[in-house]
Amino acid sequence: MRITILGNNSALPAFGRHPTAQTVTVYGEILLLDCGEGTQLQMQRYGIKWKNVHHIFISHLHGDHYFGLPGLINSMSLLGRIAPLHLYGPAGLKPILDAILAAANTVLCYELHFHPLPVAPSLLVDTPSFRVDCFPVEHGIACYGFLIAMKTRGRKILPVQCSEYGILPEHFEELKLGHDFTAADGTVIKNEWVTADGPSPKKYAYCTDTLFTESFLPSIQGADMIYHESTYLEADAEKAGARFHSTAIQAAKLAKLANAKQLLLGHFSSKYKDLEAFREEAATYFPDVIVSVEGTVYDL
Amino acid sequence: MRITILGNNSALPAFGRHPTAQTVTVYGEILLLDCGEGTQLQMQRYGIKWKNVHHIFISHLHGDHYFGLPGLINSMSLLGRIAPLHLYGPAGLKPILDAILAAANTVLCYELHFHPLPVAPSLLVDTPSFRVDCFPVEHGIACYGFLIAMKTRGRKILPVQCSEYGILPEHFEELKLGHDFTAADGTVIKNEWVTADGPSPKKYAYCTDTLFTESFLPSIQGADMIYHESTYLEADAEKAGARFHSTAIQAAKLAKLANAKQLLLGHFSSKYKDLEAFREEAATYFPDVIVSVEGTVYDL
Repeated sequence: MRITILGNNSALPAFGRHPTAQTVTVYGEILLLDCGEGTQLQMQRYGIKWKNVHHIFISHLHGDHYFGLPGLINSMSLLGRIAPLHLYGPAGLKPILDAILAAANTVLCYELHFHPLPVAPSLLVDTPSFRVDCFPVEHGIACYGFLIAMKTRGRKILPVQCSEYGILPEHFEELKLGHDFTAADGTVIKNEWVTADGPSPKKYAYCTDTLFTESFLPSIQGADMIYHESTYLEADAEKAGARFHSTAIQAAKLAKLANAKQLLLGHFSSKYKDLEAFREEAATYFPDVIVSVEGTVYDL
Repeated sequence: MRITILGNNSALPAFGRHPTAQTVTVYGEILLLDCGEGTQLQMQRYGIKWKNVHHIFISHLHGDHYFGLPGLINSMSLLGRIAPLHLYGPAGLKPILDAILAAANTVLCYELHFHPLPVAPSLLVDTPSFRVDCFPVEHGIACYGFLIAMKTRGRKILPVQCSEYGILPEHFEELKLGHDFTAADGTVIKNEWVTADGPSPKKYAYCTDTLFTESFLPSIQGADMIYHESTYLEADAEKAGARFHSTAIQAAKLAKLANAKQLLLGHFSSKYKDLEAFREEAATYFPDVIVSVEGTVYDL
């Protein structure tokens, strides 16, 4: 599971930092989380292939989280996309996109399936590779977080050992499922002799924009990594609260309560040029803090 | 009069080239022509101050000409803009912006005056410094060109000569208007003794996106510089016509018919990396051709 940050700033772009967008790559499939203005350009810059994107998730309808979406949707059509695209967002997003497409007389050359986000925590996507759940956060307008869980693909094949026992690749899928192998002469090869434990499934929780609140803690409990907005430093905690945003310390407190392994900070106010203080403040409450940097890849 | 190119590509951003946006600066006032995705970032990059922008003109509702507008409008509000902003565009633009603002519960902190573009050639703005007219072009959906005319600020004061005749600065405005000066002793100082001709007024015509057509020739006749889209080279003339676009040669033919002094080409298809052929092809029909480059300033 690989997180790529395409934009980590809050509403106003500043210091070369873009509005919110990031991708989560799971077994080659790319999930796009939010789509601030310029996302299609950031995707080009950082080598994110739109052909591998089949699911886009929009947290809420503040512009810095979706003003890049109409352009991306359009470009995919101009580039001849065929595969359907699934878009998950607040219900109000659909009439806006419909109006934009109608004004341009545009008929997309692929199917765009819109899925309005439900009010309660819900499963959105469930595939053999991953599942995505959404949960409401608290931001003044309808706003959602997402939990992406990468599914394990079973046990890991040990090619050398398989070769020694004469097991051909056509039997690997059975081995991955944990089954023993029975040779032509009736000899039973124990599964654990030719496989190892597969990679452990990973969970990534995406929480932006939101007040500090424990209301969605059950949805993110035990996540390997939590991305939590930290628009402000603690000196501006009052402003953060008034604007339905969080501080770095609040993000760290939530990560600790959730027993997360890592905390990824983002959505920084344009008032801060240097972001080191975000790491320092959060680190007083939580050990493994990362200040997100655009174009950087974080592997789980 | 100064033209700054913020985006010169057609619908798909490519090779670092952005969708359409440019500014025209007249006596310090900045007019924004189209506002493709990323325009606010391009303005930051090239030092264009939004505080000096009071008029924005949107040619049509294909996304590459206005998807940067919601973000720019929003950012101006977040940055505490007070001055009213005048927006000129196809009538369909207003309900889209209204829906976007409503979805975010956003109330702008400045007045946004929307002016729907009329069907026939019309005067849009008339100030002591400039005037802007619009005219319909041919692009499949409602689409407009704009003519920006910088007004002369009257005759140019010759400070040395004024001083010799004892004329104080408080009388300069009268002199600029061409009036003679009468001294306290009744002596008449002829205007031409203490002033020179002012700078000649300049006209800039902005024509994008459009088929090659002479239908709007009367509106751009005699322009000092014409910006005309040239999405394609001549080998793709058929494709250009089918998509309501023009070739570089067609742009050159129109500039010649309009007796323009200079032709500025832009809105290049993403299929072309190297743009030199646009200049070469257009130059076979028109002598002074410029291939627009992002971030470059063209003075009239």
